[in-house]
Amino acid sequence: MLNYRNELESMPSYDGVEKNYRIKVNANESTLSLPAAVEERVLNRLSMLAFNRYPNEEYHSLAAQIAKSFSVEESQVLLGGGSSEIIEKVFHAFGGAGHKIIFPQPSFSMYKIYAKAAEAEGISFSLDKNFDLDVDAFIKKVREVDASLAVVCNPNNPTGNALTIAQVEKIAASIDCAFLLDEAYVEFYGLSAVGLVEKFPNLIVARTFSKAYGMAGARVGYMIAQAEVTRMINKTFMPYHLNVLTLAAADIVWQMRDEFSARLQLIISERERMAERLKKLEGVRVFPSQANFILIRLDRAQELKNYLELLDIGIRYFSPDAFGLKNCLRISIGTPDENDEVFSAIKSFNWE
Amino acid sequence: MLNYRNELESMPSYDGVEKNYRIKVNANESTLSLPAAVEERVLNRLSMLAFNRYPNEEYHSLAAQIAKSFSVEESQVLLGGGSSEIIEKVFHAFGGAGHKIIFPQPSFSMYKIYAKAAEAEGISFSLDKNFDLDVDAFIKKVREVDASLAVVCNPNNPTGNALTIAQVEKIAASIDCAFLLDEAYVEFYGLSAVGLVEKFPNLIVARTFSKAYGMAGARVGYMIAQAEVTRMINKTFMPYHLNVLTLAAADIVWQMRDEFSARLQLIISERERMAERLKKLEGVRVFPSQANFILIRLDRAQELKNYLELLDIGIRYFSPDAFGLKNCLRISIGTPDENDEVFSAIKSFNWE
Repeated sequence: MLNYRNELESMPSYDGVEKNYRIKVNANESTLSLPAAVEERVLNRLSMLAFNRYPNEEYHSLAAQIAKSFSVEESQVLLGGGSSEIIEKVFHAFGGAGHKIIFPQPSFSMYKIYAKAAEAEGISFSLDKNFDLDVDAFIKKVREVDASLAVVCNPNNPTGNALTIAQVEKIAASIDCAFLLDEAYVEFYGLSAVGLVEKFPNLIVARTFSKAYGMAGARVGYMIAQAEVTRMINKTFMPYHLNVLTLAAADIVWQMRDEFSARLQLIISERERMAERLKKLEGVRVFPSQANFILIRLDRAQELKNYLELLDIGIRYFSPDAFGLKNCLRISIGTPDENDEVFSAIKSFNWE
Repeated sequence: MLNYRNELESMPSYDGVEKNYRIKVNANESTLSLPAAVEERVLNRLSMLAFNRYPNEEYHSLAAQIAKSFSVEESQVLLGGGSSEIIEKVFHAFGGAGHKIIFPQPSFSMYKIYAKAAEAEGISFSLDKNFDLDVDAFIKKVREVDASLAVVCNPNNPTGNALTIAQVEKIAASIDCAFLLDEAYVEFYGLSAVGLVEKFPNLIVARTFSKAYGMAGARVGYMIAQAEVTRMINKTFMPYHLNVLTLAAADIVWQMRDEFSARLQLIISERERMAERLKKLEGVRVFPSQANFILIRLDRAQELKNYLELLDIGIRYFSPDAFGLKNCLRISIGTPDENDEVFSAIKSFNWE
């Protein structure tokens, strides 16, 4: 018997291949690839890369650009393989024996796994029945359990609702521990807390290129915090953890991010259009969303999901034991045509 | 004060930007980018990628190809961000409180850091003064300290020498713990231990695209072991840890790996040519190498390194406190022209 790390056996594995759907609105991806002008420049940049050299200036070039956009120092920015890797490493940095990491529930399902991987005690704090976070009660709980890290996803995945910046500020000001704000969907909301970082030495904001910038496949995200915090989190990253292809592509995407404004606005207006239409369906509760997806609840959720699958449309269904998400479905927002087709398909379901 | 993970403060950080040299033979990279035919197909493949979708079949496609080439099952192959990430995760899987990881010294300097990051006790075992590993003494030591993981780099970096496959087999057969064989440079040696994996349930072989395949910037490596071992190590990888650009590029490179044969042969013959020339220099000891670099020792190593730097040639110098490497320099093998120029530059050093 090999002598593995304690508790490793109880960790889950990820190795499934996901089904491809004709309309794939189950993973909050952008359903569009890069805008043509951006793609052209990305491919041109890739064609000039030296694949044979270890990554070098590319990391700093992107980090410096991002820092400049947010008027922070480059030392306040760390890059990772998607915000996933940022979250993984932040959890690791505040994890270990005797450390507690607290996060709302339902929220991003990976928080629980990242806490376990970090060998911390993961503590979930229940959202109310409208999926709102009771900020005062959350603050009280964070202090009560003496957490080393509190995590909030804003807007929240998979519920779609968002805290105000005043609420985020209240949390940051009222807890002593590190506070990770996961802003994976913030571009669809418009209100980021990055501006609070200068004021709060415990605040860490995680962002990603995966959603608004259509780069889920490239795996690139970043975090912004005070320099002392990034100095410590940086110790959890091994050298050359990001590759030059991703860094070069993200560099161009960031330079050209204005090219994404129109599609961002479109997704936001499409979200509202879909929400209004879904609300008219009998027995469907539509939760308000500030993200690129909508959560709905209906008694026959699983049946509807199976029906859509027959039509080669993939949406996200939550198993009945996913806390608070019984009979919930999450639908990512696609192009107007895709949304029309998804809605028609939903309407054609036998609602009797 | 934020409540960081214990011991995090004592971890080193990596954030330097490396100097670019006119001739850069300090990092064991391939000095050539991809062969033109390979690059063309890589870029063509990249142009067809959907950047907006999370990686899906791409991982399995590459893992299946690699498995087939080695006549093992796909379940025996795991991919990582360079063999760096493979090593990091294997160390993590056998690390944690009370676990010991043993590795020869001098060897890849990161083993010590990976052991610390894995919160294991890192134990170094000294090579003899010719940098040979006393296999019997190593086996004895592994058993004596009750290590959870023994690590050997073969051929060894930065010394260049290699164990025979019989020696590797003897170690695998004589220890009960996991045995990680780091074959980052094995393509320049020709003798891989992958064939032993079926026989030894403790053997893990790590390989990389960074050296022989000129893909250091793309960050892709793999490990081969028995399926039960990969099942456990896989638990240390979070979902989507590899990006589609790297996976797609590596897929093409692997399909076209015969295109690299000529340059591999050239590097090997150039290594021998350089070794012969260096041996003729007074006061220079040349260590035998099976890798894509040569280690030499001379009294005025630091002076020579500084002199070459003035000529914009970067070679690797080891600080006097790097165990056993006092006055050693490591020179990666480049193209014949680069090697000629490096040798002329060395010859032009004031040897008096």
